[in-house]
Amino acid sequence: MSVTRLKETLAELSDLHHAETIADWDARVSMPPEGAEARAHVVATLTRITHERFISDEVGELLDGLDGLEDETDAALVRLTRREWERARRVPGELAAEMARTAGVAVAAWDKAKAASDFATFAPHLERQVELKRRYVECFPEIGTAYDVLLDEYEEGMTTSEVQSVFDRLKEVLVPLIASRADGGARLEGPFPVDRQQQASRLVLDSFGWDPAKWRIDETPHPFASKPGLGDIRLTTHTGPGDLTSLFSTMHEFGHGVYEFDVDERLARSPLGRGTSSAIHESQSRMWENLVGRSRGFWRWFYPQLQPLFPEALGGVDEDEFVRAVSAIRPGLIRGDADEATYGLHIILRFELEQELLAGTVAVRDLPEAWNARMKHYLGVDVPDDAHGVLQDMHWSVGLFGYFPTYQLGNVVSVQIWEVARRDLGDLDEQFARGEFGQLREWLREHVYRHGSVYPPRELLQRVTGSALDPEPYLHYLQTKFG
Amino acid sequence: MSVTRLKETLAELSDLHHAETIADWDARVSMPPEGAEARAHVVATLTRITHERFISDEVGELLDGLDGLEDETDAALVRLTRREWERARRVPGELAAEMARTAGVAVAAWDKAKAASDFATFAPHLERQVELKRRYVECFPEIGTAYDVLLDEYEEGMTTSEVQSVFDRLKEVLVPLIASRADGGARLEGPFPVDRQQQASRLVLDSFGWDPAKWRIDETPHPFASKPGLGDIRLTTHTGPGDLTSLFSTMHEFGHGVYEFDVDERLARSPLGRGTSSAIHESQSRMWENLVGRSRGFWRWFYPQLQPLFPEALGGVDEDEFVRAVSAIRPGLIRGDADEATYGLHIILRFELEQELLAGTVAVRDLPEAWNARMKHYLGVDVPDDAHGVLQDMHWSVGLFGYFPTYQLGNVVSVQIWEVARRDLGDLDEQFARGEFGQLREWLREHVYRHGSVYPPRELLQRVTGSALDPEPYLHYLQTKFG
Repeated sequence: MSVTRLKETLAELSDLHHAETIADWDARVSMPPEGAEARAHVVATLTRITHERFISDEVGELLDGLDGLEDETDAALVRLTRREWERARRVPGELAAEMARTAGVAVAAWDKAKAASDFATFAPHLERQVELKRRYVECFPEIGTAYDVLLDEYEEGMTTSEVQSVFDRLKEVLVPLIASRADGGARLEGPFPVDRQQQASRLVLDSFGWDPAKWRIDETPHPFASKPGLGDIRLTTHTGPGDLTSLFSTMHEFGHGVYEFDVDERLARSPLGRGTSSAIHESQSRMWENLVGRSRGFWRWFYPQLQPLFPEALGGVDEDEFVRAVSAIRPGLIRGDADEATYGLHIILRFELEQELLAGTVAVRDLPEAWNARMKHYLGVDVPDDAHGVLQDMHWSVGLFGYFPTYQLGNVVSVQIWEVARRDLGDLDEQFARGEFGQLREWLREHVYRHGSVYPPRELLQRVTGSALDPEPYLHYLQTKFG
Repeated sequence: MSVTRLKETLAELSDLHHAETIADWDARVSMPPEGAEARAHVVATLTRITHERFISDEVGELLDGLDGLEDETDAALVRLTRREWERARRVPGELAAEMARTAGVAVAAWDKAKAASDFATFAPHLERQVELKRRYVECFPEIGTAYDVLLDEYEEGMTTSEVQSVFDRLKEVLVPLIASRADGGARLEGPFPVDRQQQASRLVLDSFGWDPAKWRIDETPHPFASKPGLGDIRLTTHTGPGDLTSLFSTMHEFGHGVYEFDVDERLARSPLGRGTSSAIHESQSRMWENLVGRSRGFWRWFYPQLQPLFPEALGGVDEDEFVRAVSAIRPGLIRGDADEATYGLHIILRFELEQELLAGTVAVRDLPEAWNARMKHYLGVDVPDDAHGVLQDMHWSVGLFGYFPTYQLGNVVSVQIWEVARRDLGDLDEQFARGEFGQLREWLREHVYRHGSVYPPRELLQRVTGSALDPEPYLHYLQTKFG
């Protein structure tokens, strides 16, 4: 069987995925609210048809006899397709449909529960999700632990024990670091008019090298990045007048966007034409947000442009004070607002609770209590209500278990890659201070982005850094910055 | 076989159509330009999969045994589905694919040719389209004339001879009316700032009864209306500072939108859940644009609100002068800008040329000459270049032949329906003068909109007006207004 036939079939499936991406982007950015029910039907139908076509015997027949291809990219395509096809076929259609239905209902319930800060109304939906996750896990009896099944979905080959050992090491360093360095002071006071912030974001994006013929940015309550197709990258941000978080969130989403944008064009319309895993993806969003966007050099260049945009708020704030303020360690309630040092503990808490929920050692009804106790223990903060606690994230409502760890693994990986880039490129800070980001971007394109999913995450990391997952560079970075 | 199974299958196909609508709307409103190639793949794949699923034997089997259903709506569903299924199965997949490919290539060529006003570069693409249309027509050997095949696609049951006789009668009255009444004077001079026009459009839409939770309006070079799903209506308009056409185009697209919006919810996700034909659709856009939006009563209400928005342009223009200016007969080059009286002749010209192209009595290379001669003959205008002549419309590039007549039939039908509404509702002008449009809208919902495609256009017209297609009310309206 020729690989060409396989590619044609996968290209068609990729088109259907893109149709879903467009429908999803539209629902979050453009759709009048009352269109939601019809849209749910559209997305459900696209998902189901794509799934049915993918798990068909025909795809299996196309894969047969394609082992041991010489061309590295073709071999990668066969490997990845077989992995996903075998995973997808394990899940009975009835369970997949039930998971999709439950996600739709539960996310709406979560939305209401969060608005009312009322965990009790969400609890039955979360119980249902946990039950469905257990049934899902049972479809993979050969995989060591339940949580490994979920991790592997987003981060191929990652194991619970590997995450555990990295997270244990992080806790060991972060908890005392945060306790000793959290000052909570030097917070910037607004006003930061929304249009000025949008102007600032555009200046940064232009310097990072975006092209309005291929990218766009919009406002949504929850920022995200999306690729509806080759040459079409969509970022969103949320700009409020009270602070400058939109600027950092824009740089974060740029990192996701540029990874997708710079995938080799020849991989378009194939499963290889996207970032290789959630953690590698997050390593890039974190790199552009934190390692670039919170660096000294970046602000040496950009603060003289930012300051005059906000004369009222920043007129009396010098560069040093500003950089300290946007990098300060401030233990808080909300993961999405967390600083570089405390972020990891928000994730570790979720990683632990997810395992306990699945194992049944924490009951859903006891979750808020467990959440609040751990927030106190890790970050020293008191959770005033569930909206600012256990209800803050949408993930569990749509069945995303095993996903949160990839956020923090992304932070860890970002510094591992960063160290190599610095070794190759010399003083990045000096380049940033001149507003030059092109060398870094080109290096990342060459070493990371262009490969798409040709290499599984573990292999990519090894190729780029010569090392396995390793928390030490990240801890060294934090200790140097904050220690 | 139960009708439920058929409905499920059609609901899924409707979801796929909606996915295509979303992708299309996005491409025209939101997409970065460089995303076009990937988007073409997405739309082609959706179209192909939808087509394949629809023309499958399974749909035929579902239809079998569903004749003579008692429920009127179910019977209509079976009738319409069978008609479309039989039509779709007539066209070989190879021809359908070639038509889709050619449309994509030809519309891009048209775009460039129009920009350069260079018909020669477009001519080979148009020749290809004409050839494909002839092959398409051959798929329906039992239908009387070639052009009947095309008409029936957009206007079920309409025949070339019926259109011909209506258009002959229109020519008879319109050509002398226009020659005698065209004054070309009293043109409004700007500036009409874009944001003020948008504000005016919103005031009108609010009074027509739109709800921002269910509708949106955007700017595009070519205005259109779109329904990506129940409760989700999208209008676009094109607002330029030189004139007020965007206001009328907004009312026009509102007419299309409200027809779709007010289809009975129970018809959602079925082929019955949309307007019944192109001409009936156009009758509604024309009604809201012209019969409402250019009426005396409308301006009695709205001019006092509009005038202060444009003090520079309208400060010295009184209501009478304004209404005359926006209703004046001014023979011009561009169909899209044509007034109520001259519009029909733009269509009649296209109707005639389309038939001649198909019959081969006019060669593609001679088309500009034929176009220009007829423009002179019907409207007395000289065409300076092809961009303002034969290249002005996109339709032929994407293979839309037989569609133009429905625009003018819409004008004819709009007045037929209007006369009945006036008989039922009394003095509409007086209601409009109070800013009240609800009674008209509700009447239209009850008699036209809610039925979706339950009745074929001919039957709907008969039910609403008690009459067949009849140009006399329309001519009477024009003669009263302009004669």
